[in-house]
Amino acid sequence: MRAPELIRKKRDGEVLSPDEIRFFLDGFTAGTIADYQMAAMAMAIYFQGLSDDELAVWTDAMLHSGEVLDLSDAPGPRVDKHSTGGVGDKTSFILAPIAAAAGLCVPMVSGRGLGHTGGTLDKLEAIPGLTVSLDLDRFKRLVYDNGCAIIGQTGEIAPADKRLYALRDVTATVRCIPLIASSIMSKKLAEGLSGLILDVKVGSGAFMRSEAAARELSRKMVGIGQRMGVHTRVILSSMEQPLGQTVGNAIELVEAIEVLRGGGPADLVELSCTLAGEMMVAGGLVPTLAAGLARAAAMIASGAALERFARMVAAQGGDVRCVEDPSRLPRAPVEAHLFVDRPAFVAGFDCEAVGMVGMRLGAGRARADDAIDHGVGLRLHARWGDAVEPGTPVATVYARTAEAAETAVKGLRAAITLSAERCPPPPLILGEL
Amino acid sequence: MRAPELIRKKRDGEVLSPDEIRFFLDGFTAGTIADYQMAAMAMAIYFQGLSDDELAVWTDAMLHSGEVLDLSDAPGPRVDKHSTGGVGDKTSFILAPIAAAAGLCVPMVSGRGLGHTGGTLDKLEAIPGLTVSLDLDRFKRLVYDNGCAIIGQTGEIAPADKRLYALRDVTATVRCIPLIASSIMSKKLAEGLSGLILDVKVGSGAFMRSEAAARELSRKMVGIGQRMGVHTRVILSSMEQPLGQTVGNAIELVEAIEVLRGGGPADLVELSCTLAGEMMVAGGLVPTLAAGLARAAAMIASGAALERFARMVAAQGGDVRCVEDPSRLPRAPVEAHLFVDRPAFVAGFDCEAVGMVGMRLGAGRARADDAIDHGVGLRLHARWGDAVEPGTPVATVYARTAEAAETAVKGLRAAITLSAERCPPPPLILGEL
Repeated sequence: MRAPELIRKKRDGEVLSPDEIRFFLDGFTAGTIADYQMAAMAMAIYFQGLSDDELAVWTDAMLHSGEVLDLSDAPGPRVDKHSTGGVGDKTSFILAPIAAAAGLCVPMVSGRGLGHTGGTLDKLEAIPGLTVSLDLDRFKRLVYDNGCAIIGQTGEIAPADKRLYALRDVTATVRCIPLIASSIMSKKLAEGLSGLILDVKVGSGAFMRSEAAARELSRKMVGIGQRMGVHTRVILSSMEQPLGQTVGNAIELVEAIEVLRGGGPADLVELSCTLAGEMMVAGGLVPTLAAGLARAAAMIASGAALERFARMVAAQGGDVRCVEDPSRLPRAPVEAHLFVDRPAFVAGFDCEAVGMVGMRLGAGRARADDAIDHGVGLRLHARWGDAVEPGTPVATVYARTAEAAETAVKGLRAAITLSAERCPPPPLILGEL
Repeated sequence: MRAPELIRKKRDGEVLSPDEIRFFLDGFTAGTIADYQMAAMAMAIYFQGLSDDELAVWTDAMLHSGEVLDLSDAPGPRVDKHSTGGVGDKTSFILAPIAAAAGLCVPMVSGRGLGHTGGTLDKLEAIPGLTVSLDLDRFKRLVYDNGCAIIGQTGEIAPADKRLYALRDVTATVRCIPLIASSIMSKKLAEGLSGLILDVKVGSGAFMRSEAAARELSRKMVGIGQRMGVHTRVILSSMEQPLGQTVGNAIELVEAIEVLRGGGPADLVELSCTLAGEMMVAGGLVPTLAAGLARAAAMIASGAALERFARMVAAQGGDVRCVEDPSRLPRAPVEAHLFVDRPAFVAGFDCEAVGMVGMRLGAGRARADDAIDHGVGLRLHARWGDAVEPGTPVATVYARTAEAAETAVKGLRAAITLSAERCPPPPLILGEL
């Protein structure tokens, strides 16, 4: 078998056999197939796609390029959630403790933020002392003991995906549905799961702008999960406005803790509990989503979920006093408000632009090696459909300098659409697969 | 400007600006744009093509990645010929001396053989002592003194093309018409030409199997030449059977010398003189092809062309006695013949298969680093349309061992179609552009 011949086959729209796919990906992992050959293959796949059979083998080969966790002796069903990324998405900090409290084991391997989207790891690291760098043995131990743990991708998990992702990023092959699907699924399936819930975001703040593309990606991922024997479901959720009121790092954790205490914005509660409920269904703890939602609400009401969160923070070395008193979390010193000059209604967001305001404040990264400022961020007091009036802040930004604050307020003004008439927000949950 | 964004534009079928193309190719030449990015770009071009404007800039940037010969003070018009490669093609050894004797300067930078096609340099090196490695100053001197010289591509000529070609070879992006056109034209235009005649081969022994693809390639190359101010014409010629009777290295030189002496097979004479005549038209020496053909015939008849060939061989260090007495050229010791068992007519060739027989005898290369055996080869006594009968050899092979000879005879038998009825060969010259 020769690499150029396999690239040619894919270029010409032919189907690669399982042996050919494994030869190519194993060679890439071993270094006998060069980056430039994988770059050409990725571009050929961009144009010609991968069949469901090809995709399953491709994902499996990526998955087995590294270690696959064996959690077969876990004390509960192993179920995780993955989101395709959005603005203000802090559901992981809510649903992982809920699911753990309900009896699931949640071995969450997460990512960092880039561009307008934030990263779970960056947000969690706002807690002083907390580490997301644990070896896999320690990670497994914590998942077994506490029901959940959150770490970063290690070199041991799907190393072929890590290299391929870096290559796609510099060769314009990121936006390719089969490659996105296999990248996500190879990492998630390396967690040794029995169930997986995918939160696929659609809208102006999401990677997928159209519902059709989001559904295509969802279908591919569910197909891979099914072939691998993992109960996989997708929730399609709207990312036309930030999820919850806050965008940043510490400020998002504060909001997640509010939800775990029984408060917080309705949209964030709804999505977090829906995802947690689906996880319980996937793990066989409850028969229906309705039962899962009730169980999630009960885990919050009893304080069990908050207690799980505190245990996870403590176990990963974080200052647990921040959970009891979130005002201990970092907050940037300069506050500035966005006001309107006449009464109106919020009628939409450029959600990516809101994310970019947060990134430019220092909450995110323009480049992968940028540093994160955990204390900066923003809070949207008014959401899509809300009335706003002069004298009451529409949004507040938390910045390092007055200049940065002013730029952020200007950016938010441009990102929010106002209307003389009330128009309702789009539905949060668009569908399930 | 960022490389991934330029790859994305091409991927999405957008047109790259001249600045963008120069940025990309200059970066590739300088090493700031990586091989994997060029591989992805090449595959994107495979699917999306290059417009004529893009192609002209792309070629110009490749051309200027290295040295461009300045032959502006040459004693005659600078005109070269390039062939897209075939089986038994030894026209260069005939037309370069004819053109030089007629008053042109022919600065021929040639290539080596790979796969079923032979290489001009390999054939020329069959002459003991002859070198094709001359520096550009010496090359220029010989072209000025003798009217022609033949060397190999040096690191100074279009180095970006050299690297890109190597990359295309291992990433399944060789068969891409704009990349083929720019590769050929960037090397040829680096010769500082005023005129260029392209011999684009079509058929079972050619790189281009269909006339439509050959015409598309031709149109692209003529377009590039015109934009660069170089008189460029294409002869489309058939490669449905080997050109002339011989395939090999020394054996092909012997046949070329036969033509220079006024003999040789009609097809080889016709194509060589047509190309030489077109070169004279391109150089302004004659007004029409008919006049060019007459002048070519006169250069052969007078012995002037043969004398130029001998001067070129001597100037490049070759044993000039081989020109006077071609039996001094190497010839492998084992001869074997192909016979037929009943009277028939030759009704076609698998021309690539004939080339592969030559290659397996040792006349060519399966891989770029294989060594060449100058003494092996084959002679087709009967050509398409000829009658054959038992007892008279249809072909003879010259091999190192009896085993190799036997394999070659078997290979030739399979590559030649026989018929009970005479059917005429296809026309040699299919058209002009």
